[in-house]
Amino acid sequence: MNLILFDDNDRLDAQRMHLRDPVRLRHLREVHHATPGDELSVGLVGGALGRGRLQSLDDTGAIFTVTLDREPPAPLPVHLLLALPRPRMLARTLEHVTALGVKRLTLLHTRRVEKSYWQSPELSPEKIRHHLRLGLEQARDTHLPCVTFEPRFKPFIEDRLPAHLSGRRALIAHPGMATTCPRGLEEPVTLAIGPEGGFVPYEVERFEALGFEGVHLGERILRVETAVTALLARLF
Amino acid sequence: MNLILFDDNDRLDAQRMHLRDPVRLRHLREVHHATPGDELSVGLVGGALGRGRLQSLDDTGAIFTVTLDREPPAPLPVHLLLALPRPRMLARTLEHVTALGVKRLTLLHTRRVEKSYWQSPELSPEKIRHHLRLGLEQARDTHLPCVTFEPRFKPFIEDRLPAHLSGRRALIAHPGMATTCPRGLEEPVTLAIGPEGGFVPYEVERFEALGFEGVHLGERILRVETAVTALLARLF
Repeated sequence: MNLILFDDNDRLDAQRMHLRDPVRLRHLREVHHATPGDELSVGLVGGALGRGRLQSLDDTGAIFTVTLDREPPAPLPVHLLLALPRPRMLARTLEHVTALGVKRLTLLHTRRVEKSYWQSPELSPEKIRHHLRLGLEQARDTHLPCVTFEPRFKPFIEDRLPAHLSGRRALIAHPGMATTCPRGLEEPVTLAIGPEGGFVPYEVERFEALGFEGVHLGERILRVETAVTALLARLF
Repeated sequence: MNLILFDDNDRLDAQRMHLRDPVRLRHLREVHHATPGDELSVGLVGGALGRGRLQSLDDTGAIFTVTLDREPPAPLPVHLLLALPRPRMLARTLEHVTALGVKRLTLLHTRRVEKSYWQSPELSPEKIRHHLRLGLEQARDTHLPCVTFEPRFKPFIEDRLPAHLSGRRALIAHPGMATTCPRGLEEPVTLAIGPEGGFVPYEVERFEALGFEGVHLGERILRVETAVTALLARLF
C-alpha cells in the first residue's frame, strides 16, 4: 500500500478523512507501524494526490488531515481488449494493468475462453473494484479504470467496436504475426490480446478486417499476464 | 505446457523418450487429450527443440519418438541482479523471467529484503528448478537459466560483481532516477532491480560507483514482478 486511497464516503469535512476499512487499518498498524503525527501518501478516488497527517488511530478507524494538491500520473493512451483470463489470472492482471496506467479495459469472450470463466465470482463488481484499487494503491494513482464485459464476440466486434476505433492505432498481439511490436508510441492505441492458446484464425481475420495490425513479441509464448505487461511496457 | 521438456534421464534410445512425471502425464491426458499417434512440441533440456510422436500412454508413462532439429529461441543478453523477492513472488518471477529469456539471474540480499526470505523452502534447488522448467515449457525454450544466490550484499558488490561487468552496460532500475529506461538495446546488459520498497541510498551509491546508470519507468511504483517484465520488455 504505497498510497492510502480515500473516497467521498470517507470524508468528514473539507480537510479530514476517516479510514474505516479493517484491512487497510491493519496494514497501517502492522506494516507502516503508523502513529499519530505520521505523514503518509494519500489520494482521493477520481481526484488528486497529496499528503495525509494521521490524527488518531484506533480499532474502528483512523482520521487523517489531508492536503490534496498534486495530479495523479498520466494514464496510458490505450484501450485494452483482453480475452477474459481464467479467474486467478484475471485478478492479478487487473492489478498489473491498473498499476501500469490502463484506464479502459474490455474483457472479451473468444473461442478459447472457457465459458465457465464468465460465471466466476471474480467478475463481481466488488471483486473487480477491489483489484483495481490495489493496482491504484500500488502505483500511486487515483483514477479507476473503466472495465466493460463483452461475453459475445460477434456483436461486440460487429456492432460496438468499430465506433471506438476512430483516430486510434489498432493492434492485435498474436504469436506468428508478421511485424514485431512497435516501441514508444505516443498516439492512442486499441490493443487486442487473446486468451491462453491465442485467438482462432477467424477472430484474427475479424480484427484485421477492422484495420487491426498484427504484431508479435518474438518466438516465445508468454502467459497472458506476462504478455500484457510486456506489450504495454514496449508500446508506451 | 506448450512444450514437453525431456532430460537425459528420460532417454530410452537415440529416438525414444520416456515421460514418467505424473503431473505432466496427467496434463497430457486431461489438457491435451493426447492419444497415440499425436504429435506434440518437445525439447531436450539444454538441447534442441522438435516434434514428438506419442507411441504409447498409460498410467506409468508415455513413450515418444522424437525428432530434435531446431534451435531454441535466442536468450536475452542480460544478467539480472534481483533483490530476493518474497517467496510467492519469487516463484512467479522465476517463471516470468525464464519465459522472457533471461539466462543469468543473481538473487541478492539488500537492506529491505526480509532476512526470513532466505530460509524459505522456495529456495531449494528442486523448487527453483521446477519454476524454471515451467518458464521454459511456457516459452518453448530448453536452456535453463543459471541462478545464483548472494545472501550478503557487500562481499558480492565489492568482491564478485566487478569482474562480471566488463563489456556490459550496467543499469540500476530505481524510482526517481534521472533517466527513463532506454529501449531496444542490443548490447549485453547487467540490470539491477531492488526489492519492494526499493534499494536504500547507500546501495544505489555502491552500484553507481561501479558504473551503473540509474534508470526509471516513470512515476508509477510497480510491484517487483511487474517491474521486471516491464523493464525486460522495454530494454530488449
